[in-house]
Amino acid sequence: MLFHVRMDVRIPHDLDPKVRAATVAREKAYSQELQRAGKWPHIWRIVGEYSNYSIFEVESGDELHQILSDLPLFPYMDIAVTPLATHPSDIHG
Amino acid sequence: MLFHVRMDVRIPHDLDPKVRAATVAREKAYSQELQRAGKWPHIWRIVGEYSNYSIFEVESGDELHQILSDLPLFPYMDIAVTPLATHPSDIHG
Amino acid sequence: MLFHVRMDVRIPHDLDPKVRAATVAREKAYSQELQRAGKWPHIWRIVGEYSNYSIFEVESGDELHQILSDLPLFPYMDIAVTPLATHPSDIHG
Amino acid sequence: MLFHVRMDVRIPHDLDPKVRAATVAREKAYSQELQRAGKWPHIWRIVGEYSNYSIFEVESGDELHQILSDLPLFPYMDIAVTPLATHPSDIHG
Amino acid sequence: MLFHVRMDVRIPHDLDPKVRAATVAREKAYSQELQRAGKWPHIWRIVGEYSNYSIFEVESGDELHQILSDLPLFPYMDIAVTPLATHPSDIHG
Amino acid sequence: MLFHVRMDVRIPHDLDPKVRAATVAREKAYSQELQRAGKWPHIWRIVGEYSNYSIFEVESGDELHQILSDLPLFPYMDIAVTPLATHPSDIHG
Amino acid sequence: MLFHVRMDVRIPHDLDPKVRAATVAREKAYSQELQRAGKWPHIWRIVGEYSNYSIFEVESGDELHQILSDLPLFPYMDIAVTPLATHPSDIHG
Amino acid sequence: MLFHVRMDVRIPHDLDPKVRAATVAREKAYSQELQRAGKWPHIWRIVGEYSNYSIFEVESGDELHQILSDLPLFPYMDIAVTPLATHPSDIHG
Amino acid sequence: MLFHVRMDVRIPHDLDPKVRAATVAREKAYSQELQRAGKWPHIWRIVGEYSNYSIFEVESGDELHQILSDLPLFPYMDIAVTPLATHPSDIHG
Amino acid sequence: MLFHVRMDVRIPHDLDPKVRAATVAREKAYSQELQRAGKWPHIWRIVGEYSNYSIFEVESGDELHQILSDLPLFPYMDIAVTPLATHPSDIHG
Repeated sequence: MLFHVRMDVRIPHDLDPKVRAATVAREKAYSQELQRAGKWPHIWRIVGEYSNYSIFEVESGDELHQILSDLPLFPYMDIAVTPLATHPSDIHG
Repeated sequence: MLFHVRMDVRIPHDLDPKVRAATVAREKAYSQELQRAGKWPHIWRIVGEYSNYSIFEVESGDELHQILSDLPLFPYMDIAVTPLATHPSDIHG
Repeated sequence: MLFHVRMDVRIPHDLDPKVRAATVAREKAYSQELQRAGKWPHIWRIVGEYSNYSIFEVESGDELHQILSDLPLFPYMDIAVTPLATHPSDIHG
Repeated sequence: MLFHVRMDVRIPHDLDPKVRAATVAREKAYSQELQRAGKWPHIWRIVGEYSNYSIFEVESGDELHQILSDLPLFPYMDIAVTPLATHPSDIHG
Repeated sequence: MLFHVRMDVRIPHDLDPKVRAATVAREKAYSQELQRAGKWPHIWRIVGEYSNYSIFEVESGDELHQILSDLPLFPYMDIAVTPLATHPSDIHG
Repeated sequence: MLFHVRMDVRIPHDLDPKVRAATVAREKAYSQELQRAGKWPHIWRIVGEYSNYSIFEVESGDELHQILSDLPLFPYMDIAVTPLATHPSDIHG
Repeated sequence: MLFHVRMDVRIPHDLDPKVRAATVAREKAYSQELQRAGKWPHIWRIVGEYSNYSIFEVESGDELHQILSDLPLFPYMDIAVTPLATHPSDIHG
Repeated sequence: MLFHVRMDVRIPHDLDPKVRAATVAREKAYSQELQRAGKWPHIWRIVGEYSNYSIFEVESGDELHQILSDLPLFPYMDIAVTPLATHPSDIHG
Repeated sequence: MLFHVRMDVRIPHDLDPKVRAATVAREKAYSQELQRAGKWPHIWRIVGEYSNYSIFEVESGDELHQILSDLPLFPYMDIAVTPLATHPSDIHG
Repeated sequence: MLFHVRMDVRIPHDLDPKVRAATVAREKAYSQELQRAGKWPHIWRIVGEYSNYSIFEVESGDELHQILSDLPLFPYMDIAVTPLATHPSDIHG
């Protein structure tokens, strides 16, 4: 099923720059792996913010929580998840 | 460019049921026309709410406002628009 | 999968008392049918409010939205849905 | 009586990792002991957040506050407690 | 056990003045009956608002919800209930 | 006159444990002295939070501010004060 | 003692214009009477809003509530009251 | 001096369509007169909302309140005013 | 013209006590100088909070911003400014 | 197209004063370069706050995000972006 997710990244200013860079790099690799696997079909940057709107397609809440809590930036993010359904006007529905 | 839009529908309880049904039908037709034209690539129902998350792809803020204010349900909706940018981790970016 | 749902009922004061009573009666019958079917395993009244916290167990967001939007009181409710996962400390998990 | 509780865990980023791990382990043991004793009948993870929704069954507000303030993670949590009552539609009520 | 309750009264402007006056009179009689029974030990007016802070002493959430939902003004009130415990500094605790 | 006060304690995690313990002990002594003097007739713990609801009976806003700003925990608290009046339904009014 | 008060006027659009004009006129006369009596030393319009910030000087919360609830526009206002104390930097303090 | 103003228009659904159209027409004429007079140098539509952000250049708060409260749509608008100052980075400052 | 200002002081707990004391002393001197000059005609303490409501009388937004940003405590304050106008009921208006 | 942007600067108190001064200087130079290029046609200080309202004129959300995330103060700012359209009453529209 589909979920709408908003992620706001709040990395502490005093985090070691090397740790920060490495974490951001791992985050990107992990995200792209999930995109290629079809689990994370959409990700958009919110203009002006260190934030994104994403769409996830997973089997269950358990699978989604596993994916999100494994994000390298998870300890530094506020995440809000909204479950989605097919819209009756959707021409692809 | 891409915009993220949330629409919350709040039709007054005392609206004439025929007017209501006709307005909802026109809304659906109008939405599907825009989807087919590629202006409204995604629309999802928010589970449990008379609301949707949508993605619009338009030339400008002027075009998007024209589209949204022409929605038959526009007088009965709260709409929040967020501009989007390509995410650096997006494999399609 | 499991979803946490909060429902706040806001019936307009000028609704015909007979319509109101009939709608509330249908709501109760519909709720109990879903409870017996195992779709709605928990429902609790929030003390002092015309509101409830509920747990739903369904196959998908589509199924949950169908169930909720078929509630006789749906036009008069604010509903907030939160997806759940198994907690690592849950002895039943 | 029954209480609905939301817990949001906010452990400071600079907490010693050993202290953190030990505290989380004690939290799990303490939670499971209360679950086995029937005081904490339900605990669910909120998808995407370091948070849970729980149901407690206790004798009084004093007992619940004692239980919650003894949680090893209590100093790092925001907790919101809502008293519950039997719902008139509950088939188990 | 003890509960802290805030009640905000919002009577619709178009309610029949006779119905309004009769409801307010019944509310007062009902409140005083509960005060005399020891169930509602404190009630204070919030200055400048049609609101009160109250303390209730009841056996359970079920009893408190019964009392509150029987208030003649219940359909016109927003009510927020907070469970209380003995404070460790309370000289009467 | 009477005031309703909510206090939320937020002691920084890195405060020296000895300073913390001493401050909390002084807070308790100071609170009990004011309770015995009749200035602070009620104090209740909010279940699940490091917070209290209190009632103060003082001569003026100046006196109440003096009392509150002298609280040993004042630098670590969020405080909200609401003035009270006699409620017309109060049987003790 | 002194109180800071914010009043937001929200007169229903369907109120009879004559009733409205008469109520506003009575409000003005009542306000000016209290200003002359020294009870309401300051009143300022908030630019762009049908609202005011006011300062009241009264004996008690009971007196202030009596004054405010007697305002002809009281049924149509949201009122927020904040108790004041002398500021240590006030050259008039 | 300069003020930033946000206006949100909320015309009741049951307003007579002729009254509505006439009021909106008068609003437009009045706005354009003020723009030509240099009092209202900027007005932008907020995409997706019946709202605008505007900049006013006036002598005083009294003048701005007079202008805003004379808006034909004033009874149907929520207005928020923010005072502005020259920004130290402004190349026109 | 007149402005209503709310200031909330939030000095970090780890600020050097000498720096803190010196800054607070300079704040007081600066405030009293402005009061004597007629720029800051009113300042009141909000009971229970390290906050004040103030009234400023200045020529422009530029002058007010200069005054406020020169406050020794400015880096540690949240400030909210509201422009005022003469109230039509003000007997001094 | 045009965007309305609010920026709130929140530089940590413990940032090295030299780093702070250098960053603020680079911010000013960068802002003025963009103003001269016509990308950033308006910037106003919000009175009493370390904040600004700005108008940007750019080709796309991608361009605006690039500009904003390159701001030297970007890591220390909360930014909110609102897309604009021509207002039907705008005499320049």
